[in-house]
Amino acid sequence: MSLSETAPSLAVVGVTGAVGQEFLSVLSDRSFPYRSIKLLASKRSAGKRITFEDQSYVVEELTPESFRGVDIALFSAGGSISKEFGPVAVECGSVVVDNSSAFRMDENVPLVIPEVNPEAMAGVKLGKGDDKIAKGLPLSDLAKVLRMVVSTYQAASGAGAAAMEELEQQTREVLEGKQPTCKIFSQQYAFNLFSHNAPVLSNGYNEEEMKLVKETRKIWNDMNVKVTATCIRVPVMRAHAESINLQFETPLDEDTARDILRSAPGVVVIDDRNANRFPTPLEVSNKDDVAVGRIRRDVSQDENYGLDIFVCGDQIRKGAALNAIQIAEMLL
Amino acid sequence: MSLSETAPSLAVVGVTGAVGQEFLSVLSDRSFPYRSIKLLASKRSAGKRITFEDQSYVVEELTPESFRGVDIALFSAGGSISKEFGPVAVECGSVVVDNSSAFRMDENVPLVIPEVNPEAMAGVKLGKGDDKIAKGLPLSDLAKVLRMVVSTYQAASGAGAAAMEELEQQTREVLEGKQPTCKIFSQQYAFNLFSHNAPVLSNGYNEEEMKLVKETRKIWNDMNVKVTATCIRVPVMRAHAESINLQFETPLDEDTARDILRSAPGVVVIDDRNANRFPTPLEVSNKDDVAVGRIRRDVSQDENYGLDIFVCGDQIRKGAALNAIQIAEMLL
Repeated sequence: MSLSETAPSLAVVGVTGAVGQEFLSVLSDRSFPYRSIKLLASKRSAGKRITFEDQSYVVEELTPESFRGVDIALFSAGGSISKEFGPVAVECGSVVVDNSSAFRMDENVPLVIPEVNPEAMAGVKLGKGDDKIAKGLPLSDLAKVLRMVVSTYQAASGAGAAAMEELEQQTREVLEGKQPTCKIFSQQYAFNLFSHNAPVLSNGYNEEEMKLVKETRKIWNDMNVKVTATCIRVPVMRAHAESINLQFETPLDEDTARDILRSAPGVVVIDDRNANRFPTPLEVSNKDDVAVGRIRRDVSQDENYGLDIFVCGDQIRKGAALNAIQIAEMLL
Repeated sequence: MSLSETAPSLAVVGVTGAVGQEFLSVLSDRSFPYRSIKLLASKRSAGKRITFEDQSYVVEELTPESFRGVDIALFSAGGSISKEFGPVAVECGSVVVDNSSAFRMDENVPLVIPEVNPEAMAGVKLGKGDDKIAKGLPLSDLAKVLRMVVSTYQAASGAGAAAMEELEQQTREVLEGKQPTCKIFSQQYAFNLFSHNAPVLSNGYNEEEMKLVKETRKIWNDMNVKVTATCIRVPVMRAHAESINLQFETPLDEDTARDILRSAPGVVVIDDRNANRFPTPLEVSNKDDVAVGRIRRDVSQDENYGLDIFVCGDQIRKGAALNAIQIAEMLL
């Protein structure tokens, strides 16, 4: 039982969305302690009933008054809601853990992946926390990454539940020989792929790609790391994949890299060359860990100064919900 | 009418396969002149009737005798058939245009993309040809490519007609809540993606990736170009895509690159940033041209020394059938 009088009071903002639902699932899976929980959403969803840990809750409309007495507010209702209500919640004394990109590049707001840069949480506390935070050991700790070239294979789930439904509906239509219905995306998604739907900036990168470039620098706390990215939407339901090419400042051989990744928290290595078994989106769907494989010395770089890897992770589970709740756990 | 007494006699080897069928379609589309045509396949397919240009043909079993009197033999029946029957056809006086990878890295066999390296065909002729061959203008002619990082998004069609059927059948099964049937691939393909199914070599690359590395060097006639590749199979029916990162020896700005690509033969530029419209596999399916877009200065490299691009091409149409027939046309 995770209900406790001495535990924090929680609010989940955007509870009816794909990530909001996953917030509840992860809170329950991890027996996150709470005194009370408020389920918040837009006016349209207010009044719906949601059962959480055998209790029935009524979804409440999000208003500036929603955050009175809330210790931790978990936001995932889009950037504009975070921009409007995040400061209100902070004003009310809540600690906000925001899954949207609204404040990710704000220099006063830490951008945290608990396994990678828990130290960024220093100073953010509920009451008297312990700030001795263990740090994971990513590759970049052992050999500084100079440059990273990323190509993504992004699932429908990244664009929300409606996008997943559109992929399913379109696929049925195409199989029946019908014209696919395009509502969320402007072009056929079934049996197709396309450049990420985020707006394209004047430098030719789309916002998703520049987020990847800038957020990597912030998370690694290295403003000099060179990153380029090409973000592509593929007809996969859930979990993103990335093909990553790394260039190091000092040598790092592939066996050492594999060992580091094997012992890294939140990472599972799937790298069976004989069986041709490597990470797939399907395999990591609904899983906490990020899977890494295809770990090999890059033949286009000086020996041991470059690696190619292939990574799959469930961005709803780990990328959004679990990550937020791990951050909330660090507050306890 | 492309039937002509003075035209060459043709043979199509593997005529019942996906590429074999496309050979016929391209021969017809381009009014390729021929005196006669033999449709060859394995014993299993022998006796089938195929209509080509309003004539009904009986598929003949491929034997060493098949090539008597054949001027041009178009092969696409897999590497082992090419290895066995290619030399037999040459012995009979045929010029072999082989779509398999059997001889691609053989230093006595030219590897030709007519728009890129037609000069590699010099010396390969039927009777008295003209060897003034116009050369396309790829980016690498204007600014030497030092290094290329490629991540692929490969369609089912690359693994043949049966793989396309498997993707369709699995997709139906998954939508019906059934367990997907895996015959061609060892894992679920519907709504999933996985590392290319080619065997993995001791250096951790699979054969498909090392083909890309080595064939680029041969086609560009540049043994020093550094290439790395990650090949991924995505649930797309037809046409491959590639995310390509380029590093140049001398500066090449993105506008110049776009202009070069726009005027390159066999290339169409789709690069509309405002409309977020870029190449997709669906759009190039059954098309002759390769589509290029997302042309942008790589922010991770010194200004104008790097570009990111995204390319889609129908590898059955352009990658296999059209390319072979363009090569055959150069023989006329």
